[in-house]
Amino acid sequence: MQTLNVELAERSYPIHIGEDLLSQPDLILPHLKRKQVAVVTNTTVGPLYLDKLCNPLRDRGVSVIPIVLPDGEQYKNAEVLGKIYDALLENRCERHTTLIALGGGVIGDMTGYAAATFLRGVPFIQVPTTLLSQVDSSVGGKTGINHPLGKNMIGAFWQPKLVLADTTTLNTLPDRELSAGIAEIIKYGLIRDIEFFNWLEANMTKLMARDPAALAYAIRRSCENKAEVVAADERESGERALLNLGHTFGHAIEAGMGYGVWLHGEGVAAGTLLAADLSRRMGWLTDTDVERIAAIHRAANLPTVAPSLGTAAYLELMGLDKKVQDGKIRLILLQAIGKAVFTADYAPHLLHETLQTTDA
Amino acid sequence: MQTLNVELAERSYPIHIGEDLLSQPDLILPHLKRKQVAVVTNTTVGPLYLDKLCNPLRDRGVSVIPIVLPDGEQYKNAEVLGKIYDALLENRCERHTTLIALGGGVIGDMTGYAAATFLRGVPFIQVPTTLLSQVDSSVGGKTGINHPLGKNMIGAFWQPKLVLADTTTLNTLPDRELSAGIAEIIKYGLIRDIEFFNWLEANMTKLMARDPAALAYAIRRSCENKAEVVAADERESGERALLNLGHTFGHAIEAGMGYGVWLHGEGVAAGTLLAADLSRRMGWLTDTDVERIAAIHRAANLPTVAPSLGTAAYLELMGLDKKVQDGKIRLILLQAIGKAVFTADYAPHLLHETLQTTDA
Repeated sequence: MQTLNVELAERSYPIHIGEDLLSQPDLILPHLKRKQVAVVTNTTVGPLYLDKLCNPLRDRGVSVIPIVLPDGEQYKNAEVLGKIYDALLENRCERHTTLIALGGGVIGDMTGYAAATFLRGVPFIQVPTTLLSQVDSSVGGKTGINHPLGKNMIGAFWQPKLVLADTTTLNTLPDRELSAGIAEIIKYGLIRDIEFFNWLEANMTKLMARDPAALAYAIRRSCENKAEVVAADERESGERALLNLGHTFGHAIEAGMGYGVWLHGEGVAAGTLLAADLSRRMGWLTDTDVERIAAIHRAANLPTVAPSLGTAAYLELMGLDKKVQDGKIRLILLQAIGKAVFTADYAPHLLHETLQTTDA
Repeated sequence: MQTLNVELAERSYPIHIGEDLLSQPDLILPHLKRKQVAVVTNTTVGPLYLDKLCNPLRDRGVSVIPIVLPDGEQYKNAEVLGKIYDALLENRCERHTTLIALGGGVIGDMTGYAAATFLRGVPFIQVPTTLLSQVDSSVGGKTGINHPLGKNMIGAFWQPKLVLADTTTLNTLPDRELSAGIAEIIKYGLIRDIEFFNWLEANMTKLMARDPAALAYAIRRSCENKAEVVAADERESGERALLNLGHTFGHAIEAGMGYGVWLHGEGVAAGTLLAADLSRRMGWLTDTDVERIAAIHRAANLPTVAPSLGTAAYLELMGLDKKVQDGKIRLILLQAIGKAVFTADYAPHLLHETLQTTDA
């Protein structure tokens, strides 16, 4: 087991990465203020891992309230959030009850948001069971739900007390979700870590074959990169925005196709290629750079061509994104592989040209 | 105009207290990150003060989005909160849009909670128009909504950038709500400020006659007391709990009678008398102390006798309160007038005796 500390003053917390962490209650017990936890999971992950996590806790005298939600991004909404509150209140949960998120990013985001807002904030622990959530949504304290008018529009910053990234859970992950997680891993290389990007190019075959050592290294390096960024900029005023490379385009793709059709990581992958295309038109990336970026995504079985939604639809969908200031859309672009910038300083006609490449 | 600063490091903010502050845009403009505000109010306060607040802002080039909600505690719920989000998104509000709460505690709590959670947090300004909200809910950063199973069960701590306590708005306040506000003012004297309690005994007639100077003094002294407590204990782990004198009983009264039947301040008044009764049974207060506490509440036309809900109903309703730890109900009790404690160290049979006094 490896441990990484996310340094956020009194909100600092450890991330443990390794095999079979789920069933080690000694990792969890020191973080509980009282021996009561509510474990939020879904109908896919629950049957696989709920008992594995809960039984050892029960054996140690912890009262466990399981809350099983339907599985899917379409359930990351106010109605399903309400069911978490209902269950917490019906079971007399208190300020010192700890919420545990057992699942992927949707479960992590919703459980974290419920923890941020139940009784004005209760402790929570993340047990991410997908590669994406292990390298992305479990680090950084972003929590929230979707709104019919946009993704993640309602939310809060709320840090977990502990993250357990159990690599054993990746054995049951569908191929498509493995690839989606790798999309976020590639992102860390692209925005700030050229050495890691080079390592990923050399080791993509191993990652796709779920080599445990390669996965552990990639998770650790991704979390380190994200933790460094988050520690420097907890509330996303500056550098942290760079983590959203491909996300403004990606969210537009996800929303335009209807939530749940494209996986988040797939939207990010195709969105990253759009950001790379615009960066090339700005004269920052070479054709060779763009081809390297496309190639590594292809090697991870990720989409590199964005869907044809029409330029107007893209602009409309991007206009609702949180990264808007005074009506200008700021984007994360690449000045080189390993160096991203967050800027509104691009020619609008070049953005239009990039979006036009998506027209079938 | 008097100004008080609530000291919370980078979340510090000023409270201005005085006449006709609503229509002074120069007080608001320096706090706006961009010239767009969403003003949340209700169908009672809106017709009285919305134009007074908004027109001078519009004259100064601020884009104003009014959001008018139905009036009443029964609308402090997830459904009506959703309407705020809808309006913000439909009007393309952004991270730098400021939310302004124009109204009483319900509007302040809901608007603050919407600000805490919209796009993971946007700035907000409080313009409390009731005495209660001027001395209580506008100071301290507590925001939230009710749940069918309990009051204020969903919420967040979120500090305003500015509070404008315009005493002129109190001229349109119904008598019953004036009294409810005075209940919270008396509370500050009871828990930590014997001199203020003495002043209130001597000046209650002036307050009830809405003497502007007396009101301004009482608001200021109340805010100072609350600000001192909140600055020392922002997230309510210790002393801040004392501000809830009468509230555990009071919330039970409000919930037991059905939200909206008793005003919050009325519940707190009758709840404070229950806390005083239990404190007397503990041997901390004398009969004379309890009579002084009853007399000052009577002078403010406040209820001093709690409704007959039955002991079992009281315990049940109090059991869902946020101040529960490991199954024990901690209460704020009085060791003397001017000295409150937050304790679970009382004999349960004395609490039963106190609750039995409510049986008709």
